[in-house]
Amino acid sequence: MLVLGADRKGAGDLADNNDALSKKNFNTELLLQALRREDIDGFREEFLELHPYDQASFFSALDEEARMKVYHFISPEEMAGLFENLGGEEDEYQDVLSEMSPDYAADMLSNMYADDAVDVLNELDKDQVASYLTIMDKEAANEIKDLLHYEEYTAGSIMTTEYIAISANQTIRSAMHILKKEAPRAETIYYVYVIDEEKKLVGVISLRDLIVNDDDNMVSKVMYDRVVAAMAGEDQEEVARKMRDYNFLALPVIDFQGHLLGIITVDDIIDVMDEEASDDYSKLAGIADLDGMDRNPFSAAKKRLPWLVILLFLGMFTASLIGRFEETLNKVAILAVFIPLIAGMAGNTGTQALAVAVRGIATGDLEKESKWNIILREAGTGFITGLTCGILVTFVVYFWQGDLFLGALVGISIFCTLIVATLAGSLVPLFMHKMKIDPAVASGPFITTINDIISILIYFGIATAFMGYLTK
Amino acid sequence: MLVLGADRKGAGDLADNNDALSKKNFNTELLLQALRREDIDGFREEFLELHPYDQASFFSALDEEARMKVYHFISPEEMAGLFENLGGEEDEYQDVLSEMSPDYAADMLSNMYADDAVDVLNELDKDQVASYLTIMDKEAANEIKDLLHYEEYTAGSIMTTEYIAISANQTIRSAMHILKKEAPRAETIYYVYVIDEEKKLVGVISLRDLIVNDDDNMVSKVMYDRVVAAMAGEDQEEVARKMRDYNFLALPVIDFQGHLLGIITVDDIIDVMDEEASDDYSKLAGIADLDGMDRNPFSAAKKRLPWLVILLFLGMFTASLIGRFEETLNKVAILAVFIPLIAGMAGNTGTQALAVAVRGIATGDLEKESKWNIILREAGTGFITGLTCGILVTFVVYFWQGDLFLGALVGISIFCTLIVATLAGSLVPLFMHKMKIDPAVASGPFITTINDIISILIYFGIATAFMGYLTK
Repeated sequence: MLVLGADRKGAGDLADNNDALSKKNFNTELLLQALRREDIDGFREEFLELHPYDQASFFSALDEEARMKVYHFISPEEMAGLFENLGGEEDEYQDVLSEMSPDYAADMLSNMYADDAVDVLNELDKDQVASYLTIMDKEAANEIKDLLHYEEYTAGSIMTTEYIAISANQTIRSAMHILKKEAPRAETIYYVYVIDEEKKLVGVISLRDLIVNDDDNMVSKVMYDRVVAAMAGEDQEEVARKMRDYNFLALPVIDFQGHLLGIITVDDIIDVMDEEASDDYSKLAGIADLDGMDRNPFSAAKKRLPWLVILLFLGMFTASLIGRFEETLNKVAILAVFIPLIAGMAGNTGTQALAVAVRGIATGDLEKESKWNIILREAGTGFITGLTCGILVTFVVYFWQGDLFLGALVGISIFCTLIVATLAGSLVPLFMHKMKIDPAVASGPFITTINDIISILIYFGIATAFMGYLTK
Repeated sequence: MLVLGADRKGAGDLADNNDALSKKNFNTELLLQALRREDIDGFREEFLELHPYDQASFFSALDEEARMKVYHFISPEEMAGLFENLGGEEDEYQDVLSEMSPDYAADMLSNMYADDAVDVLNELDKDQVASYLTIMDKEAANEIKDLLHYEEYTAGSIMTTEYIAISANQTIRSAMHILKKEAPRAETIYYVYVIDEEKKLVGVISLRDLIVNDDDNMVSKVMYDRVVAAMAGEDQEEVARKMRDYNFLALPVIDFQGHLLGIITVDDIIDVMDEEASDDYSKLAGIADLDGMDRNPFSAAKKRLPWLVILLFLGMFTASLIGRFEETLNKVAILAVFIPLIAGMAGNTGTQALAVAVRGIATGDLEKESKWNIILREAGTGFITGLTCGILVTFVVYFWQGDLFLGALVGISIFCTLIVATLAGSLVPLFMHKMKIDPAVASGPFITTINDIISILIYFGIATAFMGYLTK
């Protein structure tokens, strides 16, 4: 039987959510009927008209039996575009590949843009990768092998080799001729890169310039020779920043000698930005990985538990610290009332400072500043917020408990805590960044717990020292 | 005297950070000397070669005297590209505009792409906008006025009207002719939109297709007629999602009748993504606005204090709740020791759940799910994490304090707290989203504080009920 699988709702929703115009894109029923009737021509006619993203949405919602028919109806080459647009779910590549015959899969992988094929292969285990590379088209396999060498999160790992390169000593007419010939296999034709005999990058020319300028002009006259490029080992976040600042649609990637190795297109950069934003965000929240919605509580709990257990033990440490002040607490139980307030304020101000620091590291703004500048500014910020909140709390506690000394004790604790917590929130991630330790360690909950400890030491330290003055 | 202003370091760093190839881009000294010597031709020759982003970086680092010379050396039209690339600092547009003569400024604004001019005008006050629009080029002023009507954060507010539109009944040759003619004023020439006599959008054709296909083909044959478009009132985040999914370089914007109103280019979408990511991030951290690094502690404190003061009062409320259990605390002071642990765990798990929910709302994943599904999943996740942490903590406290009942009390409190806090973390933002309340209210610190309160009620509630069993 041919029906939409477990995800039937998904595809339906998609159609509902779309606006008037794009609703036309996607006639699920028509396609399903064609599949059911084994009407190859009807299916192909409708299906190949779809944007690959829509093809992938439709395909993802099918059950295995229906998917097997699709492999039959659609050539590996036609499947390549669809397959690039799968992803999302963790093991989707793996599952779909295992349904295809190895030859079909290898053929499809050869027909994908090299960078997309690399993305897929990076999700598979080494044996699988090796076996696909063996049966794949030689040329494609070699391109992919080269790209697989680059370290993750570098420019090299997200670039593709399907660019158009020309030499400077030719007319625009002849450049356009090359461009038309190469267009079908190039990932973008909107930038053409100019290289010398040694394959060194010497210039770039946009299709816009090619079209606007006279056909008899020389490329060397029209090309832009101050090319902004990325080094192959450069961090992908840095590449994204360049792309954003310069509004490029593609960026060339070079080695130390200036040889052109590949290009990175703007759609890949959008994916990088998504990834990096979600990464910073998960760090702040203390979750291992935010990608994709979890379908069941077990996988959700698996992602959240590691941090929670670490924080539990840090929390036990905090508890043991308070335990040392049990005598103070026994005498003045009212002190306990303000523990969550003080620890909470320390946590909040620390998270704020952390967020600013992580963001500053991400945008590169912080690296331009001197260390002392940052420390002074954060200490100043802590001083101002601490003074404001400290004075406020002193009066509130005074009016509530009628005890000015208690008010002052809480107020001074808040004041000191906010200064130290603000500094900790910004300096810990900066220090980790400088030490090249993965700043994921300095996540929100971690900083919060550190600041809990600091705030409690300050509060009980002050309280124990001046206990004699407390009226209760 | 003509020197680099306070930001001298900035520009220098920029040059240092760049890699070998792009270092060539930027000869600060050469440009400064030309400015100093009042060598108009020398300055223009070097300066106009630069990418507008580099021009803006150089310009931002100048002092006022030097900037005044630049206005003199560079025409308003040439200034337009530079000006679009300023931004970043809050009042930079304002400052620079006030240095220019009104005519120069108006002329420059007319020469910017309409969407960029709108971005600038949105930063100014209404009187200023009106006065610039009066002296501006009529046609440009009208385009801008139309765009200013759209609500912020909608597709309409970020679109531009400088697109190329053609009719379907012509050959590719004639379409290419129009394209070449319109290229200088169009923001992108890589997509050409096909409209009917009523200006309704009927198709799209990429420059790639125009070039690859035979010149004698009809546009109607080659064009793609299942256009994905955005509605003018659509949220910019939704537009960004479409652009990312479909890998487009531009997206047309239409009204309810399907008339083509404008286009949104991928570089604007990158800015939107940056903005939205930073927005979600600031919410989680409880900071008003994370854009740009603050130079001094006062502006930093101004952004952080509002939340801190709100949280201070919420914290006082928490304190007053504990105050009600003072009697319990007086009898069993050891209870106080575990307050930060329990409140901290509630805060952490709530922040995790919040992050997942906010992200799910942003990606649209959550809207596909049923309410009950979400509640069940989150309750299940809380149950699993609560059970694990609860059992762990029971044993740790038992071994540490030698008191199994105390251990069980803390363990059961953690168990209940984690379930409730996980639910609160995910349901509060979902509820706000459904109620169309700005989910900024459900920021990280807010959820943390709510969960502090819940956790303390649970803990002291259980403790007070079973106090008789506590050995100390």
